[in-house]
Amino acid sequence: MENFIIHNPTALHFGRGVTGELGKTVTRYGKNVLLIYGKGSIRRNGIYQQVTEQLQGAGCRVAEYPGIKPNPVTDDADAAVALGRMRNVEVILAVGGGSVIDTAKIVSLAIPSGAKAWDIMTRKAKPQAALPLITVLTLAATGTEMNQFAVLQNEQTRHKIGYGNPLIFPAHSFLDPSFTLSVPRDYTAYGIADLIAHALENFFGAGDATLSDKFVYAVIKEAMEFGPALLNDLNNYDLRAKIMYAATNALNGLTAYGRVSGDWGVHDLGHILSLLYDLPHGATLSVAYPAWLKLMRQRAGDRITELGKNLFDVKTVKETIAAFEDLFAELSCPVRMEELNIGEHQKGDIVALMKKNKVNGMNYKLSEPDIENIVDLMFG
Amino acid sequence: MENFIIHNPTALHFGRGVTGELGKTVTRYGKNVLLIYGKGSIRRNGIYQQVTEQLQGAGCRVAEYPGIKPNPVTDDADAAVALGRMRNVEVILAVGGGSVIDTAKIVSLAIPSGAKAWDIMTRKAKPQAALPLITVLTLAATGTEMNQFAVLQNEQTRHKIGYGNPLIFPAHSFLDPSFTLSVPRDYTAYGIADLIAHALENFFGAGDATLSDKFVYAVIKEAMEFGPALLNDLNNYDLRAKIMYAATNALNGLTAYGRVSGDWGVHDLGHILSLLYDLPHGATLSVAYPAWLKLMRQRAGDRITELGKNLFDVKTVKETIAAFEDLFAELSCPVRMEELNIGEHQKGDIVALMKKNKVNGMNYKLSEPDIENIVDLMFG
Repeated sequence: MENFIIHNPTALHFGRGVTGELGKTVTRYGKNVLLIYGKGSIRRNGIYQQVTEQLQGAGCRVAEYPGIKPNPVTDDADAAVALGRMRNVEVILAVGGGSVIDTAKIVSLAIPSGAKAWDIMTRKAKPQAALPLITVLTLAATGTEMNQFAVLQNEQTRHKIGYGNPLIFPAHSFLDPSFTLSVPRDYTAYGIADLIAHALENFFGAGDATLSDKFVYAVIKEAMEFGPALLNDLNNYDLRAKIMYAATNALNGLTAYGRVSGDWGVHDLGHILSLLYDLPHGATLSVAYPAWLKLMRQRAGDRITELGKNLFDVKTVKETIAAFEDLFAELSCPVRMEELNIGEHQKGDIVALMKKNKVNGMNYKLSEPDIENIVDLMFG
Repeated sequence: MENFIIHNPTALHFGRGVTGELGKTVTRYGKNVLLIYGKGSIRRNGIYQQVTEQLQGAGCRVAEYPGIKPNPVTDDADAAVALGRMRNVEVILAVGGGSVIDTAKIVSLAIPSGAKAWDIMTRKAKPQAALPLITVLTLAATGTEMNQFAVLQNEQTRHKIGYGNPLIFPAHSFLDPSFTLSVPRDYTAYGIADLIAHALENFFGAGDATLSDKFVYAVIKEAMEFGPALLNDLNNYDLRAKIMYAATNALNGLTAYGRVSGDWGVHDLGHILSLLYDLPHGATLSVAYPAWLKLMRQRAGDRITELGKNLFDVKTVKETIAAFEDLFAELSCPVRMEELNIGEHQKGDIVALMKKNKVNGMNYKLSEPDIENIVDLMFG
């Protein structure tokens, strides 16, 4: 086992009605609030009203930055920073899914210094402080509510990358599963694919971490046990709660401690598909993972077999990969490019942008021929 | 799933050599240090020297309170509080196992106000602040290094009880598995029994928490996979690391979130045996758990079967209980009173003190006849 430090400072408030404490919690950090959210679904499902009532009740002055896109861009982060600096905000409140929260994380880092978001992402700027960030999660998927990571894309340079910094752990995250009841079936499914992929990325990292492996099995088995049921019963609070909590645990450190690193090659691959075709993140992962597993048959055969034994009670690499394809299909997630409406003639563009972005894994390194092979495998 | 808050502020430093940061970490909180430790094993195995070199190197002024007993008593806590107040200590450093750390937790709460330790334990005194507590763990067992609980006994009144307060989460805990290499075989085994029991106490709590159940299986399977191996290879760092990390996770919240409560009836039973016969905590649990499971055959039959299926791949309550007895035996832990050198003629004393202490579970309540039956079952 590698040395590690566990220090996750996020206070996670989980359950029905927890946002009743939101106003009181926000004002512990200040009354000038920058409220960041997405394209308006929170206005339709009543969450916007609940949140703003909390803020008004607590006497907050609120600057709003709406309109964050599902694949979030640094331009929005920069514009939100400008608004926040102009209004002297003291605390950031992000209401939404991973795209909103990831944007807010970079905004919280950029406001004190005024650094550009992309300079932070590329580590050209090295912020030493961040505004406190509070999140209200409306989509179970990315785990960003309890970790130090953010992923943004740069529309000018056509890059999409991840970033990590302990300063961007949210101070508080409010997870009311009933806030996810109105998430449509497809995005619910993509969220489940995303959480499974997060557990797998950690599993395929380097180093011996047997208990973290068992936590990977726990999280994925929870998704296997309750994910398909949820897709048939979208209004079920208990099932929403199980998937929401599983998504948090897939990427809050628990599946990673004691490893040298995760792998994250599949995320790198998926990000390029989102960048090119504005696809939902989880849908790119359910296509990329089976292809990656097939490419890694030899190199990661023992690990794949171990997964198969513990998750599916099967014995071979082939059976394990088939079981994952079946699982993603049972979750109504795509497993081939054609299900994403991507044709073979687009291969060249995809491979070129993957190479430009230097797509790679941290443990199982991807050569340029590997990338070409994986893209072939994504077409089946 | 019940509502819950996850907010564990302890920074856990895990791995070989992590105490190289100890001096620097302590002095972030102050230079006047109260060092609490046990009966001298840390002087024999070199840990005392490593710790004091760190403190000297950082320019600390150290007041020492040694001699904490394996079943710790409030008298020692009170005496340590008096020393700490006299020396105006700013930070507490506990070096040892659960007994030392639990004592230090109550000391850290008592120093600011000067309250008596037993008044805190019984909630007659309600401290509003605590000194920062830093721990160096030398025994993998109780999980106290990353939680808000402490157990102490009152030698005058013959009570032994648990106490919980978020103020007593350690600020930092240093877990170097090599610091446990000199723990003898029997105490290594009792520590493994203890961690298994902690996971079980949470599993038998009330409420539907399926992911926490899976974390219970993960922790116990880790102990099953590597515990017996460690007992045959006590100097193996990697096995020590696996068991140490499993013990932390058994009782740092992970196996509990989403439940109404744990059960803790078996711990209540075990504490009385320790109180009467000064027995190691883990050895009392490996005797009490099979007896408790037998008593709960009907009431908790479904849960016991679920455990059996997931841990041992068996189908019935009877097979599950037998598998636990086999597991504890494989770990060289006692499963019957005679292995603790307790004879049937002592039954009356045991039952009387259990009744006086109002031994009970939080989920499966224990009546007085239940207690008599369980004690009978402990004799086999």
